[in-house]
Formats: sequence, C-alpha cells, structure tokens
Amino acid sequence: MDIQTYITTLARGAKSASISLRSIKANDKNRALERIAELLLEKQDFLMRANRNDYEKGKASGLSEAYLDRLQLTQSRIDKMVQSVREIAAMEDPVGEVIGVQRPQGFLLEKIRIPFGVVAVIYESRPNVTVDAAALCLKSSNAVILRGGSEAMESNSALTSVLQQALSKTGIPVETVQLVERREHEGVSVLVKQNKYIDMVIPRGGEKLIERVVSEATVPVIKHYKGVCHLYVDEESDLTMAEDVVYNAKVQRPATCNALETLLVHKRISDRFIPKVAKRLRGVELRGCPQTRKILPNIKKADEEDYYTEYLDLILAVKIVSSVDEAIDHIEKYGSRHTDGILSQNIETVQKFVSMVDSSVVTVNSSTRLSDGGVFGLGAEIGISTDKLHARGPMGIKELTTYKWVIRGKGDIRT
Amino acid sequence: MDIQTYITTLARGAKSASISLRSIKANDKNRALERIAELLLEKQDFLMRANRNDYEKGKASGLSEAYLDRLQLTQSRIDKMVQSVREIAAMEDPVGEVIGVQRPQGFLLEKIRIPFGVVAVIYESRPNVTVDAAALCLKSSNAVILRGGSEAMESNSALTSVLQQALSKTGIPVETVQLVERREHEGVSVLVKQNKYIDMVIPRGGEKLIERVVSEATVPVIKHYKGVCHLYVDEESDLTMAEDVVYNAKVQRPATCNALETLLVHKRISDRFIPKVAKRLRGVELRGCPQTRKILPNIKKADEEDYYTEYLDLILAVKIVSSVDEAIDHIEKYGSRHTDGILSQNIETVQKFVSMVDSSVVTVNSSTRLSDGGVFGLGAEIGISTDKLHARGPMGIKELTTYKWVIRGKGDIRT
Repeated sequence: MDIQTYITTLARGAKSASISLRSIKANDKNRALERIAELLLEKQDFLMRANRNDYEKGKASGLSEAYLDRLQLTQSRIDKMVQSVREIAAMEDPVGEVIGVQRPQGFLLEKIRIPFGVVAVIYESRPNVTVDAAALCLKSSNAVILRGGSEAMESNSALTSVLQQALSKTGIPVETVQLVERREHEGVSVLVKQNKYIDMVIPRGGEKLIERVVSEATVPVIKHYKGVCHLYVDEESDLTMAEDVVYNAKVQRPATCNALETLLVHKRISDRFIPKVAKRLRGVELRGCPQTRKILPNIKKADEEDYYTEYLDLILAVKIVSSVDEAIDHIEKYGSRHTDGILSQNIETVQKFVSMVDSSVVTVNSSTRLSDGGVFGLGAEIGISTDKLHARGPMGIKELTTYKWVIRGKGDIRT
Repeated sequence: MDIQTYITTLARGAKSASISLRSIKANDKNRALERIAELLLEKQDFLMRANRNDYEKGKASGLSEAYLDRLQLTQSRIDKMVQSVREIAAMEDPVGEVIGVQRPQGFLLEKIRIPFGVVAVIYESRPNVTVDAAALCLKSSNAVILRGGSEAMESNSALTSVLQQALSKTGIPVETVQLVERREHEGVSVLVKQNKYIDMVIPRGGEKLIERVVSEATVPVIKHYKGVCHLYVDEESDLTMAEDVVYNAKVQRPATCNALETLLVHKRISDRFIPKVAKRLRGVELRGCPQTRKILPNIKKADEEDYYTEYLDLILAVKIVSSVDEAIDHIEKYGSRHTDGILSQNIETVQKFVSMVDSSVVTVNSSTRLSDGGVFGLGAEIGISTDKLHARGPMGIKELTTYKWVIRGKGDIRT
C-alpha cells in the first residue's frame, strides 16, 4: 500500500470512530481507561521487550545518552503511565458541560462543550506520550492518530496494541487510537493534509518539524514549540529569592521545555547579583554578554545564536539590560512565547512586564518550572501550546474540546 | 515596490502597532471609536463619492444586481455603520478580564484575557465589513490588516483613510487599521504567509478562497465558510410550527449564510407536510429528491450537486429521509458545519440530533436565521466561524482575544 493510501485509511478510520464517540457515555470511557491501566500492567514484560529492541538499535546507531534515557521504558515508568491513566479516568467528564446559558431573545441559547473529533499528535522518543495522548483523547471523546519517532517504533507499536486490545474488550472502536506504523518521512506530509478527516494536529518538537508542519498542513495546527525561557531580575528584586528561583529554574530539570535558558539582569544590581548567582550555579556553563564578562571574565561569550537556543542542558546565557523595557524587547525578539518571568518587588514594573510580554505563561517571583499541566492542576498534558489560537500553555482534556451553540426554541423565528 | 515587500511592510507595521496596543487603556480605545463614528458622518459625501466610482465600474463590468446591492453605500448604511461602531464602543472591554483564578499549590494562578496581536481579514464586496472589522479589532486591542475585494477598492480605501484619520487624532498608531491597496491576486498568498507578524487570518468567502488560504497559509486560519444550512422535520414535530420556521429560515433573508438551503422531511409525515409547506413557500423554487417529486411532480430534480450548494437565493432542495439517523448522515456528508436544525417534540430524537450533528450552531424548533452575533447578544460580528479551533459560530470581540497564564508567587519553585 502506498503511504498516501495508508495514511488516508487511518484518517478515515479515525473519523468514523470519532462519530461513534460523539455519543459515548462517561462511564464507558472510564471503564476503557481502567482496562487500559490493567492491561499495561499485565503486559509489561511484552512492552519492555519491545522497548529493549528500540533501545539496542538506538544505542547501536549512536543515539545520545539523554536521548536513550528518554526512550527507555522501565517498570517504574510503566507504573507512572498507569497512574496517569487512572488519574485521567478519575477526572470529571469534560464533554457535554454547559459552558454558557443565555436567553438573549426568549429562546434558550446554550454553549456546550464537545470533542474536537480527530486529533493527530506528532512527537518524538518518549513512549509515555503514546499512552498519555491516547488516554487524554479518549477521555475527551476524541479519536487520535499517533505519529511517534522512528526510534521508538517498536515500543509505540507494542503500547498501541495494548491500548487497542483494551478498547476492543470494552466495546469502543479500536480506530479510536491508531499509530502510524510506517517510517516514511513523507507520512507526516500526508497526515497533516487530511483536513477532510482530521480536526487538529499537535506537532511537538523543534524548529524543523514545526516549520515543516506549518507550511504543509491544511489541518489546523496547535504548535508545541521549544521553550526558550527567560527570567528577568529587576533592580528592585529580592536578590536572595531571585537566586533561589534562578537556581531552581535552571537546575532542577534542565532537559525540560520550561527550564530557564537566558537570564536577564538589570545593570544596577548586576555587580552584586551576578557573582552570587554564578557561585550558586556551579556546574552550569555560563555564556555572557560583554558586560557580564567584565564581571565574570572567565566565562564564554554568548553569541546571537545563543539567545535563540533551547539548551535543554546545564548551560545558561546571561545578559545585562538597562531597563525592564530592554528585557521585554529581548524576550520579544528571542523568546519562543513559552514561559518567561520577572523577579521584582515593584508593582508597576511587574504590571508592565505582565502586560507586555506575549508568552503563554508569565511568571512573577516564581520559577519557570511551574509552567506545567500537572502543577496547574490539569492532570496530564498533551503538551504545552506556544500558539495563540484556541489554547495557550499546558493543554489538558478541556483544551482537547471545542463547543457548539444550541438554540432551543418553541417555534422561534427571526423578525 | 514588489508585492512581497509591500505586504511585509504592512505586516511589520501592524505588528509594531499591536505591541503598543498591548497596554492601551479602554478609555483611549473608546475615544478613538467615538471619533471614528463622528468622522464617518462628517465625511459621508466623500465616502459616497468613492463608492459611486466602484459602483459604476462594477455596473460597467457586468456585476450582478445582488452583488451591486451589497457593494452600495447609502446614507442609511453609513448610519448603520456608525451605530455599530458606537455599540462596540459601549461594550465592556474584553482585555484584561481575569477568566480563571486558582491556587493549585500556594501561588496565585490567573488566566487573563489578552488580544491576539495582529488579525488579517479577507472578504468581499460589502464595505461595512471594513468598518465592523476595524472597530471590533480596535476594541479588542488588535491591529488589523484588511483585504477587501477589488470591486470595492475605492470605497474601502476611503473608509480606511477616515478610520486612520480618527486614529491619528486620538494618538493611536495608524497602522492599527491598514488596507491592502494593491489588487494583485498574489497579495493574498503573501499575506497568509506572514506568520512572523500576523497571528490569525479570517477568510470570509466561498470554497475557492477558503481552499486557497488553507493550503497556502502559515498563519493560523479561522475559516468563515459557506452556510449550507439544513432543517430536519421529524415525524413527531408540530407541523404548523415547522411550516412557520421553514418559511422564516428560507424566505426572511435568503442571501445570508444562515438561510435554509436543504429541507429534510421524515417519510411518515411527508405526504401531509410537503404539500403544505410548498404552498407556503410560493415563489421559492423547489428541487426535490425522487420521493419528493412523487408528491410534487412539477418541481425540478435535486442533483447531488444541489445538496452541496449554498443557493443564497429563493431556491430550496427538499429530501425525504426515513429516520433521524439518515438526516444526521445527510448533514454530515453535505453540510458545511454552519447551522443545522431539527423540528421535533420527541426529547430523545432531539438529544440524538443535538449530540450527533457536528455544526457550529444547532437549532431545535427554531429558525436557522437566529444563528447571528447580533441575535446572540455579541454585538457586531467579524464573521461566523465554521471551524472548530478557538471559536465556532458568530465571532465577536471576545472571540478576537486569547489568554495568557500568569503565575504570581513569592519565590515559589518546583520541588
């Protein structure tokens, strides 16, 4: 079968499943989720064997340690997946919720939360995304098409077979969760053009993937782009607090998208703050602007390129700015609209920063690492939107729904 | 200047204006809107002269009567524009509204309504869209780039000059409202690829325009597509009410997107209902399925093509179906996800129809003509979204906003 036919068949199957899902009951979804949790535990040897094959192949082909670590399924990671599925099952059903009622002209006007229909997710390496995305989509009554990375193909394939087995045992169409099992690069191009069947595509990844999807897609896209996150330490900030927050944002888990990548420091406090924070950040490679290097002569120079970079590592760019406005301009130019924050005790400066910085999440006197669906109380997340349309920041089950208007009249007409 | 440079210059100007608009006060926006209203009245002779030129050219080039009518600016139409601008000014400011507050883990988490940034609107003929779109975007603190039809170029150009004059007199960047004044067809292609500067594009129009924008755009799109609206008259409906509602939906203003285009009738009541409603719809050209033509032998045959057609005229396709499921399937296949309704007294049938019909607006025992921003109490509308992402149905000022998350902590970190 050519790749065009293969993908179109998946998409058509998903669309058909999504039509059944429009009227599925909350209990039936929760029963299927519970069955998924049980089956993931029952089949963990099978899953870990498949994952072992991916891991060995990846190692042989020279994947980095960090990459291999993200790829690996362990017993405790399977336990976490299962826990996540059960947490999603325990959440309130988002579908059918009446999110607005009015009587503008006698008739009843309701705004009702409904599923999107068919969601496609394009992602890399970590196999837990397969289960999280499937569980979130099922809970929100969507069908999902998963396109994971080639490196995790056996793992994702094994996981999907377990998911589908659980669905078929609970009477839900197996096409509710489907994996693209063909490795052709072209598959992505075909997938993102299925606007007849697919309602939304979520690409999670770096610049190249995002650009490709955006330029080729006819399906509406919600981008989950990189996080070039900033903290700006204002002249009027509590420097002890700032030191703790910067340390947490950079070091607590540097490989995540909400970790700090560039530190902006007001020039009036740079002499005091920069040596202090540099000491605290021992083990982190600092790259500085010319001013910063006058204070810390032994660090590397930060190039223009550095300011655009999501290091995902123990590296931090440091730049001295002369005002909150310069910090705002820097973030506007180099940021990725993910998560950016200010440390300041001045209410007006904070207000200016909050209204002018155009990011999905803006933090005030707190760590960028708090920008997370779990921390926000959304349960698991399908990703963190760096887009403006429909959803921004962490996306949970509510963000996987849309709405319809329902007019209930008694023969009402337009006059 | 080549068209690429021309459009990019507009887009860059709009982006720059949108940055200023992030912190604009509600009062300043309202003062500018009031100045716009005054100036539209002051300059009405100028506006009508420009419009007269478009009209004469359109007439000479053989535009249809209906088209010429939509194109024409009259004194009363200018009065209506002015009224609309004042209504928009009187609405509550949507920007800055806190639409969610939580304390998931000690820190304060707010979801705050903010403008999109830069919105592009692509539309045809009716010059009032120019003023409505500009006023709605200004009220929601967005910059807008308007791309009207070539036929209305002089009118739109005159209107835009009035809008910009009002802006400059009230200290708002004139690039807040800009018109694409070049007629090259290619301009649309360049415009919808400005994702660096433009946050959302709203194409309002027919299949060709929408398809072109969707396949070329890198800017996120909200489609305002045609309305192939249906009413299904169930076997358990009040036939007198049904007759009134069908008449209103088809005849009250047939050239609008929420007018009825296809009538579906349950076979058990077709013998009684169809002759009755045909009599009431005197003057409307009916086109029937084979069953319908057994009841009304003198009407034309409805082709497959008819069921996909937005007539925008006094023409109605009529089809007899054997169940609510067949009605739902027909709407799924031929509909445009705009507005579709059921007439039934059976609660379960209604519930099935409401949950299974995947349209922006679903009407129950009421006219499709009620699907309108004004009727819904949204004030003016920038269009009616037939999309699922972000906004469905009538879009007002709230639908021209997005949100950001703001975390306010006291040194809060991730542990």
